[in-house]
Amino acid sequence: MLFLRMTSPLSKKAPQASSAVVEGAEQPSTPFGLMERLFPICRSITGNGVRETLAILREYLPELVIHEVPSGTPALDWTVPAEWNIRDAWVKNEQGERVIDFRQHNLHVLNYSTPVQGWFTRAELEEHLFSLPDQPDLIPYRTSYYQPNWGFCLAHHDRLALPEGRYEVCIDSTLDTAGALTYGELFLLGSSEEEVLISCHCCHPSLANDNLSGMAVATFLARHLAEQPRQYSYRFVFIPGTIGSITWLSRNTETVQHIQHGLVATLLGGPSNFTYKKSRRGAADVDRAVAVVLRDSRLPHEIRPFSPYGYDERQYCSPGFNLPVGCLSRTPFGEFAEYHTSADNLDFVRPEHLSQAIDLFSQVCDVLDTNRRYRNLSPYGEPQLGRRGLYKGVGGGTEGADWQMALLWLLNLSDEEHSLLAIAEQSGLPYALIARAAAALVACDLLARVE
Amino acid sequence: MLFLRMTSPLSKKAPQASSAVVEGAEQPSTPFGLMERLFPICRSITGNGVRETLAILREYLPELVIHEVPSGTPALDWTVPAEWNIRDAWVKNEQGERVIDFRQHNLHVLNYSTPVQGWFTRAELEEHLFSLPDQPDLIPYRTSYYQPNWGFCLAHHDRLALPEGRYEVCIDSTLDTAGALTYGELFLLGSSEEEVLISCHCCHPSLANDNLSGMAVATFLARHLAEQPRQYSYRFVFIPGTIGSITWLSRNTETVQHIQHGLVATLLGGPSNFTYKKSRRGAADVDRAVAVVLRDSRLPHEIRPFSPYGYDERQYCSPGFNLPVGCLSRTPFGEFAEYHTSADNLDFVRPEHLSQAIDLFSQVCDVLDTNRRYRNLSPYGEPQLGRRGLYKGVGGGTEGADWQMALLWLLNLSDEEHSLLAIAEQSGLPYALIARAAAALVACDLLARVE
Amino acid sequence: MLFLRMTSPLSKKAPQASSAVVEGAEQPSTPFGLMERLFPICRSITGNGVRETLAILREYLPELVIHEVPSGTPALDWTVPAEWNIRDAWVKNEQGERVIDFRQHNLHVLNYSTPVQGWFTRAELEEHLFSLPDQPDLIPYRTSYYQPNWGFCLAHHDRLALPEGRYEVCIDSTLDTAGALTYGELFLLGSSEEEVLISCHCCHPSLANDNLSGMAVATFLARHLAEQPRQYSYRFVFIPGTIGSITWLSRNTETVQHIQHGLVATLLGGPSNFTYKKSRRGAADVDRAVAVVLRDSRLPHEIRPFSPYGYDERQYCSPGFNLPVGCLSRTPFGEFAEYHTSADNLDFVRPEHLSQAIDLFSQVCDVLDTNRRYRNLSPYGEPQLGRRGLYKGVGGGTEGADWQMALLWLLNLSDEEHSLLAIAEQSGLPYALIARAAAALVACDLLARVE
Repeated sequence: MLFLRMTSPLSKKAPQASSAVVEGAEQPSTPFGLMERLFPICRSITGNGVRETLAILREYLPELVIHEVPSGTPALDWTVPAEWNIRDAWVKNEQGERVIDFRQHNLHVLNYSTPVQGWFTRAELEEHLFSLPDQPDLIPYRTSYYQPNWGFCLAHHDRLALPEGRYEVCIDSTLDTAGALTYGELFLLGSSEEEVLISCHCCHPSLANDNLSGMAVATFLARHLAEQPRQYSYRFVFIPGTIGSITWLSRNTETVQHIQHGLVATLLGGPSNFTYKKSRRGAADVDRAVAVVLRDSRLPHEIRPFSPYGYDERQYCSPGFNLPVGCLSRTPFGEFAEYHTSADNLDFVRPEHLSQAIDLFSQVCDVLDTNRRYRNLSPYGEPQLGRRGLYKGVGGGTEGADWQMALLWLLNLSDEEHSLLAIAEQSGLPYALIARAAAALVACDLLARVE
Repeated sequence: MLFLRMTSPLSKKAPQASSAVVEGAEQPSTPFGLMERLFPICRSITGNGVRETLAILREYLPELVIHEVPSGTPALDWTVPAEWNIRDAWVKNEQGERVIDFRQHNLHVLNYSTPVQGWFTRAELEEHLFSLPDQPDLIPYRTSYYQPNWGFCLAHHDRLALPEGRYEVCIDSTLDTAGALTYGELFLLGSSEEEVLISCHCCHPSLANDNLSGMAVATFLARHLAEQPRQYSYRFVFIPGTIGSITWLSRNTETVQHIQHGLVATLLGGPSNFTYKKSRRGAADVDRAVAVVLRDSRLPHEIRPFSPYGYDERQYCSPGFNLPVGCLSRTPFGEFAEYHTSADNLDFVRPEHLSQAIDLFSQVCDVLDTNRRYRNLSPYGEPQLGRRGLYKGVGGGTEGADWQMALLWLLNLSDEEHSLLAIAEQSGLPYALIARAAAALVACDLLARVE
Repeated sequence: MLFLRMTSPLSKKAPQASSAVVEGAEQPSTPFGLMERLFPICRSITGNGVRETLAILREYLPELVIHEVPSGTPALDWTVPAEWNIRDAWVKNEQGERVIDFRQHNLHVLNYSTPVQGWFTRAELEEHLFSLPDQPDLIPYRTSYYQPNWGFCLAHHDRLALPEGRYEVCIDSTLDTAGALTYGELFLLGSSEEEVLISCHCCHPSLANDNLSGMAVATFLARHLAEQPRQYSYRFVFIPGTIGSITWLSRNTETVQHIQHGLVATLLGGPSNFTYKKSRRGAADVDRAVAVVLRDSRLPHEIRPFSPYGYDERQYCSPGFNLPVGCLSRTPFGEFAEYHTSADNLDFVRPEHLSQAIDLFSQVCDVLDTNRRYRNLSPYGEPQLGRRGLYKGVGGGTEGADWQMALLWLLNLSDEEHSLLAIAEQSGLPYALIARAAAALVACDLLARVE
C-alpha cells in the first residue's frame, strides 16, 4: 500500500490551510478517507464548492497554490463564466412539502442553474425535469453551464409520481459576474525545469468515481513524489473540467513549453480494469511508458487510441498545443451504468483500487523520470560479464534468466538510440528490471549515460 | 436510384448522334436498358462493333468524342493492329447444315479470327475448336489478337457430338491494315485542370458483366457528374482492352500529367460483392477514398493489393506512368463460373447492382472532389462551440453523437496535414458527415481551407 | 540429395590434410558420415579436440586454414584462455571401481575442469556433481570456462546410487597458459570482395545436433559453393563458441567491413522444423532471403525476432559491429529435451535433415548471390510480350500462370528500387521463378541490370 508509507511533514495538517477547514481536524490518512470528506460538497465549475474542496486538499498538500481568475477574463476562445453559488433548491407541492430537495442530494439541482422562485403547473415544471427512464431509481447528473437554464434532476419513478397540480419552485442560486473561477496548482521542483503534468477535474458535485477518485489519486501521488528524488519537475492541476484547463492553458503558455509528459487522472476508484487513452501524438513517451507499466503490472487492461472527446486531454491535445498528455482511468466515461448518476457514490469506489491506481501512476512517473539512453562502452562483441561478477558460473544449462537477459539486451541496444523504455518494450522484460540492470552496468563502466 | 434523377439535356437523344443509330429512337433510360441495346453487337479490339457501340453511347453522352487511330500507328511498345470486321462464320457438315453458326452467337467465332474458307476433316477442324470440358453447356470466349489464327468456340458437348467426316468452314472476316482502332473519350471540364480518369473496355462481344456493365456504369456516372459542380475535370475513356489503353496513353502523355486519380470500371453488374484492387502506389488518395466509401456503405466488400494482371490498370500503373489508378469491380475476372462464357449474359446482371455501382462510383468521385485540408483557426484548446450554436444545451449525459464527434475530430486534426479523408479514416465517421461538419465549421470561421 | 553431386577434387582426401588423419583413410561421402567421425572427439573451447576436429574437416576442405591464437592474447574485452587438454578422468569408490568414467562418455567431466587428484567424502564430492533430476537417465553437458572448477556430470539415478563413503577422484587435465585457441577458416573468393559469412561452433564434445550438425552442414555447403560460380566471396569460420567469434572478430576488423550477409549454422540435424532468428537489423537482406527461401520451401517453419542470447550471432550483432548475421537452425537451444544432454547423440540426428539443411543454406546463398535490381527498359505500358515469344497464344481463359505473372511483376516493379527479392516478396512467387523470368527479360532487352 503505497500511501501507507506517506508520513509527515506532508501528512500533517498544514498550518497555512484555508480557514474553511475545521480547526484542529487531522485529515484522514487514506485516499478513500479524503474522498469521504469531499463527497458531500456541491461543486460546480466555479464557486465555493471548488474553494472548499481545494482548501481540504491543501491540508494534504500544503504547497498547493489556489488561483482565483475573475469572471469575464478572456481564456483562449472562451470567457471565464460567472461564479455560481447555491444555498438551497426545492420543489414543493401545494401542501408545502418538499417533493424535490437539494438538501437531500445535491444532484437534484441542474448544476449551474439560474435562480428561480415561483409557482408552476406540473406541465410547466415538466420541461425542467431530468430523469433516466432506463435507470428509474437513480438521480442523473446534469449541467447547463453555457446556456442559461434551471432545472431539477430526479429518479424517474419519482418524476412519474408527481401528480398534476401546482408546484412552488425555488432555486436559491447566484451567478456573480464579479466572481471568479478557482483552481489549485502544485509544483514540485525537480532537477530539471522540464515538467510532467498531472491534471484532474474538481467540478463535479457528489460523485465519487467521477472524479473524487482522480483528486484523491493525484493528491496522494503528489505526496509520494514530494518525498522522492525527482529528475523532472511535477505540476499537479486541480481544475474545473474544460473551462478550467482552458483557463489554465491561457495563463500558462510559457509553462506549457516545459511539459514533456502528462496524464489526466480520472475514474480511478471503480471496480473495473485500467484503460489508457493515448495522447494525440499516439507514440509519445508517456503513451509508451503507460503501456509498459500496464504490461509489467500483469493486470488486465485496455489501451485505446486518442479521440477528441473525454476529459481535459481534449484541451491539452488541441492541435495548437498538441501536448503529450494521455488519460489514465478505469472504465471510461459513459461505459459503466453508474456514470453521472447518484449511483456513482462512495459505495461504488474500492479503496484498494485507489491504492493500485496511485501505485500505477507512481510507476509511470518512475519510468518517465528514469528513462534514459545509454552508450555501451564495450560495443564490439559482448563484454566479459563473468570477470565483472555479472554472470553465473557453471554454463551449459538452459540459462537465460531475466536478469542476464536484461544485461544482454541493454548491452546490445545501448547504441545511444534506444532508451530504457525502448529496451523494455523490445525485450519484453519489466522496465524495473531493465533499469536495475542498467545501473549495474553503469557501475561496471560498461554503460555510460547519454545526455 | 441515382440514375432516375438524370434528365435532359443529356438524357435526350443527342442530335449529333452517329447515323448508325436508328432514327428517332429514344435511348432506354436505365443502365440495364443500355446494356440490352449493346449486348447483341460483335465487338473486338478494332472494327465496326466498337464504332456501333460508341455511337450508341454518344446518344447518352453527346459530347463523347470518337477517335480513330490508323492501323500501323506506333503506340508505345506496340503497333495499332489491323481493323477486324466479320460478316459471317460457320461450319457446315457434309449435308450443308450449319453445325456452328456465328449468327446464333457471336462467341462462336474465335475473336479476331483470320478469314478462312474450305473443307477440313474432323481432325483438322479439331485443332481450331475451343470448348470447356468442365462447363460443357457453355460457349467459351476466346481471342487471338496477336497470333494469326482462326477458330470456333462451342459448347463441349456439341464439340463431342461432331462426327467424323468433312466440314466446310467459312469465316468471312477481314483484317484491314488500312483500318483503324476506335475509342471514345468524354471530357467534363471542372474548376481545375487536374483530372480524374474513369476507364472501361469496350472490346468484348456479347458478354454482359464483362464489360457492358462497366460501360453502362461509366456512361450513367458521366451523365450524373455532368450535372454536378465539379472541382476536378473528369475524363472517361471507352477503349479496347490493353491495346486501347496503350494507344490512348501513347497519344496523351501530356494529359497523363494531369491525372490525379483514376478508376477502371469493370464487372459491376454481377450478383456478388464489390472488390477493389488498389493502385500500384497502394495508398493513393483514390485507394483511400474507395476504402472509406466502401466502409461507409456497410456493404460487404474486399480490398486487395495491386497486382500487375487484370484490366487496363496494368497499363496505367506500368512503372513509367505509375498513375494512381485502381480497379473497382465486383467479383474479379476468373473468379466466377460465368466469366468469359456464354453464361455471362444479360440474365447474369442485376439492374439494381448497376445502380448501386453508379452510386458507389459517384460517392468516390464526391470524396475525391471535396477532399481538402483545413486549418483550425482556433487551435489552442477547443473553441466554444456552444456560443456558435454547434453544441447541445444540457450536458452531463453520455453524449458524443456523431455530429459532435465530427466537429471535434475536425477541430483536432485540422492542422493542415490531415485531409477530410484522413479525418474520416482516423475517426471512423462517415466521410459525408465529416464533410458536412467541415462546412459548418467553415461557416463559423473556425476552419479555413488550405490551398 | 545435394551432397551426392559433390565429387572430386574436393571430395578426395586432400594430400595436405593434417597428420592427425589416419593415413590412407577416405573420408565418408556424407554429412552424417562426417558427424560419425567427429562424434567421439572430446572438444572444448581450446585444445587438441578442436585441432583434431579441424584436421578432419580439412580432409573435406583442403583449403581450410587453421589458426592458432596464443593463450593470453587480448581479444576485444576478453583474453584468449589457457589451452585445456584432458587425458582421463574418473571417480573410484573405495573398492577402486570407476563409478564415473570419462572414458565411457566424455560428457562425464565438467568441460574445462581444472586438474584434481585425491580422496573426497561423498558429501565433498556432492558439490562437484551435476545431474538432471527431471531427466534422470541422461548425462548433462556442463562447462566452467571462466570460473576455475572441477566436476563430474552423470545420470541423476547414478548420482543417487552413490553410497556414502570415500571416493578417489582424478581429473588428468592440463590448463596451459602457453597454449592456443584454434579455429578454422575457409575463404572462397568470388567475383566481388564483398562477403557472406557462415559461422558454426566447434567446441562441443560428444554432442551431435549441437553442433556437429552445424559443422557438417557448413562443410558440405562450402564444398557445394566451391563448385559454383559466385558473385560474393564466402567465408566459413569454424570456431569455439563466444570466445572463438570474439577472437575472430578481434583479428578481422578489416574483413568485417566486407561482410554483407551472414548466417550462424547450428542445430540442423534434429527431427524438427526450421527456425530462423533474424539479425539485429531485423530486415536485412539475409533476413528477407531466409524468409523467402523458407516460404518457397513450403516447409513448416518459424521466424523469430533477434534477441541477444543464443549462438555467435550475439557477437556479430553486438552494437559495435551490428553485422547482418542471423541464425538458421531447427528447434532452438533449450527448447528440445535432448539439448545439452547425452541424448543429443547420433541417433537424434536424421541424415536426410542434414541434406535438407544444406539445400536450404544453398538456396539462401543463391538468393543472396543473384539478388539484383533491374530497370524496365520499356516502362511505359506493358511491352508486347507476344512478339518476343514470352506470351501464350489464344487469350481469354483464366490464364495468369506463374511464369507469366513473374514476367509481369518483374516488368511492373523493375523501377531500380525493387530487388528480385523484393519482387519475390511482393508477388508471392518463388524466388527461383522470379530469377529465371528476369533472365528471360534481360535476354529480350526488356530489363537491364542496375549496378
